[in-house]
Amino acid sequence: MLSNLKIDLARLSGRLQALGRIGALPGGGVCRLALSAEDKGGRDQLVAWMRDLGLTVRIDPLGTIVGVRPGLVDCAPVMTGSHIDTVRTGGLYDGALGVLAGLEVVATLNDAGIKTERPLAVAAFTNEEGARFAPDMMGSLVYVGGMPVEEALATEGIDGATVGGALQAIGYAGTDPAIRPAAFIELHIEQGPVLDREGLRVGAVTGVQGISWTEYTLTGISNHAGTTPMAMRRDAGYAAAAVAVAVRRVVTEMGPPQVGTVGALTLSPNLVNVVANQAVLTVDLRNTDEALLQKAETRVRQAVAEIASAEGVSMASRRLARFEPVPFDPDLVARVERLARSAGLSARRMPSGAGHDAQMMARVCPAAMIFVPSKDGISHNIEEYTAPEDVEAGANLLLHLLVDLASSP
Amino acid sequence: MLSNLKIDLARLSGRLQALGRIGALPGGGVCRLALSAEDKGGRDQLVAWMRDLGLTVRIDPLGTIVGVRPGLVDCAPVMTGSHIDTVRTGGLYDGALGVLAGLEVVATLNDAGIKTERPLAVAAFTNEEGARFAPDMMGSLVYVGGMPVEEALATEGIDGATVGGALQAIGYAGTDPAIRPAAFIELHIEQGPVLDREGLRVGAVTGVQGISWTEYTLTGISNHAGTTPMAMRRDAGYAAAAVAVAVRRVVTEMGPPQVGTVGALTLSPNLVNVVANQAVLTVDLRNTDEALLQKAETRVRQAVAEIASAEGVSMASRRLARFEPVPFDPDLVARVERLARSAGLSARRMPSGAGHDAQMMARVCPAAMIFVPSKDGISHNIEEYTAPEDVEAGANLLLHLLVDLASSP
Repeated sequence: MLSNLKIDLARLSGRLQALGRIGALPGGGVCRLALSAEDKGGRDQLVAWMRDLGLTVRIDPLGTIVGVRPGLVDCAPVMTGSHIDTVRTGGLYDGALGVLAGLEVVATLNDAGIKTERPLAVAAFTNEEGARFAPDMMGSLVYVGGMPVEEALATEGIDGATVGGALQAIGYAGTDPAIRPAAFIELHIEQGPVLDREGLRVGAVTGVQGISWTEYTLTGISNHAGTTPMAMRRDAGYAAAAVAVAVRRVVTEMGPPQVGTVGALTLSPNLVNVVANQAVLTVDLRNTDEALLQKAETRVRQAVAEIASAEGVSMASRRLARFEPVPFDPDLVARVERLARSAGLSARRMPSGAGHDAQMMARVCPAAMIFVPSKDGISHNIEEYTAPEDVEAGANLLLHLLVDLASSP
Repeated sequence: MLSNLKIDLARLSGRLQALGRIGALPGGGVCRLALSAEDKGGRDQLVAWMRDLGLTVRIDPLGTIVGVRPGLVDCAPVMTGSHIDTVRTGGLYDGALGVLAGLEVVATLNDAGIKTERPLAVAAFTNEEGARFAPDMMGSLVYVGGMPVEEALATEGIDGATVGGALQAIGYAGTDPAIRPAAFIELHIEQGPVLDREGLRVGAVTGVQGISWTEYTLTGISNHAGTTPMAMRRDAGYAAAAVAVAVRRVVTEMGPPQVGTVGALTLSPNLVNVVANQAVLTVDLRNTDEALLQKAETRVRQAVAEIASAEGVSMASRRLARFEPVPFDPDLVARVERLARSAGLSARRMPSGAGHDAQMMARVCPAAMIFVPSKDGISHNIEEYTAPEDVEAGANLLLHLLVDLASSP
């Protein structure tokens, strides 16, 4: 009987659309920056749904919302969830799918009158996006004790507000302590093009890539573009361009899963007829393997040093962010893949290129993620889209995995 | 007796300093944007000096000021001059030296009681810099009939003012028609590092480089820097960097006098973790030879097309400026070099990398330029500096060349 259990796509889609109307942008998409008035609107709706489903709502000091469905045994719950904050021009699926699919699992079990051995919990972590307050994944980081709550509350956002002040303002500064779950499963859209391009339905996420962000500042000499012979130039703009080309070369030579991006590059004075005296650029390197990530960092650093030396520009660097790769629980990853296949869904193992709350939860319990396809890999964009059949397949997979995990104490 | 004639360095330096106090910046340097209140101050001082020296002051409809010293014969004058407008953070020598050295030549001849066969004229052309109103060299361009005066007067500046309105406001909208001179000689600082680095005193300027400015817009697809495999990227930022590297390669392979610069490069959205969907960059190419300049343009255009195609980004281009090289009068160039050597000054022939009023005057009469060293090649900067002995040598060279040219009708 359990294996025939299915979620209600219409109900889940209805909630996705309803949540998407809170903070909806005129041209489509949604803006619910963490702890904003729109975020409060989304939270209020989420809490109302949780209460309707009979969940006990817990709010922690950073505003993370956890709805708990009691089990037959009073023990550590199996937890699922994600986040409902968005970037400034976000879509309807990033984060929201994971939270609302969790509610849909609860609703399905309620309708079928099924009680699990372990309690189930559905979490919506505060400020996963980091679009208003840095760092991203703040709520889950604090939830697992990776950042003191006082430090998080004191964080100042891009608009000058603090996390603590914004939490008070929207009435979501709670007092409930965090629960340590028995396992954590997050359903999320891929936010990349791999499943869509390969025509696959499910990604069994093996882990989250390690991330290395470095800002390089190259300083040369500003000179007249007409009167300065090439041999006398110390062109910070040329050096920056050569670095961007070198990053691509290093990454290509190393091959997948290494990726690298120079996404930001700013020249000064940035004029057509003036040799740039300064260039600031960022290098984003990611790999699922820490040793390979370190190798990429070393090779890029060497390339920058060589280029700077050859052009006669000085080089300074600043680490903007550094996270080691997070491997997910091998048994859980295998279960995701097996369950998908047994449901007739094409699947592959794959790393996550983006960070997710599950990587923080992995610090305190076995954790894993289920990816469903993102059309054209587009995310953090109002065009973000996941087909209804993929939403349905992902939620059903989550349902069966949670029931499985919660059935054995 | 004529060959012993020398200018008075103290008097010339005094005028350079006095003019530099009009529009002086707090930290040094000067700001006399074309047709500003500061420019009016400089013009008033210049006209007063011209009248003190007995010159007849003529002002054309674009505000170009020409002081004329009668000759023994009523014929076309030998003209010298430059400009007294500056960029926003300019130095004391760019333009001012050429105008004030012209006055110093007149003062020296007055003191020695020397009359030349031909009249002498000293010009200060309106808006050479183009820092407030485009294009640069506007005054000399209009003076030689290269741009209708009505079009120039209607030009709107960066502050919304028009040239005509600004001219009226400072009282320099004149009615005197342009004079067609027998020859034009401009003394100017090099604004580049060649003379300074090579330890030479004088540049006999062979002509002005042709200039080609092109803006390229590369459009790719914005993607997540973590989740998008390298092979699926259409990274406009990478393509732009590859173009900047290609420009350097093309220019280096062609060798001097070809120069090339990517001085402006702007990415969108310019974020550390987002593959840029758009890059706008400028390519500044210069050569003294039109055929070589066209070759450089073609090679860069091909490189951009190949890079765009390989990365799967689209490419659009827009010509921002294009001037053919202007060769100066070979006989005048030879005379500059010969006179310098006979005065015991080390000299070399060299092109001008920057544009100058002399290149416009070359459309209507034999023209040439004398360069004196710029310390470290710095110009358009408050640190701009030319040593007193170089100011003196350049002014003496101008004196003897003008006297030579004006002695034969």
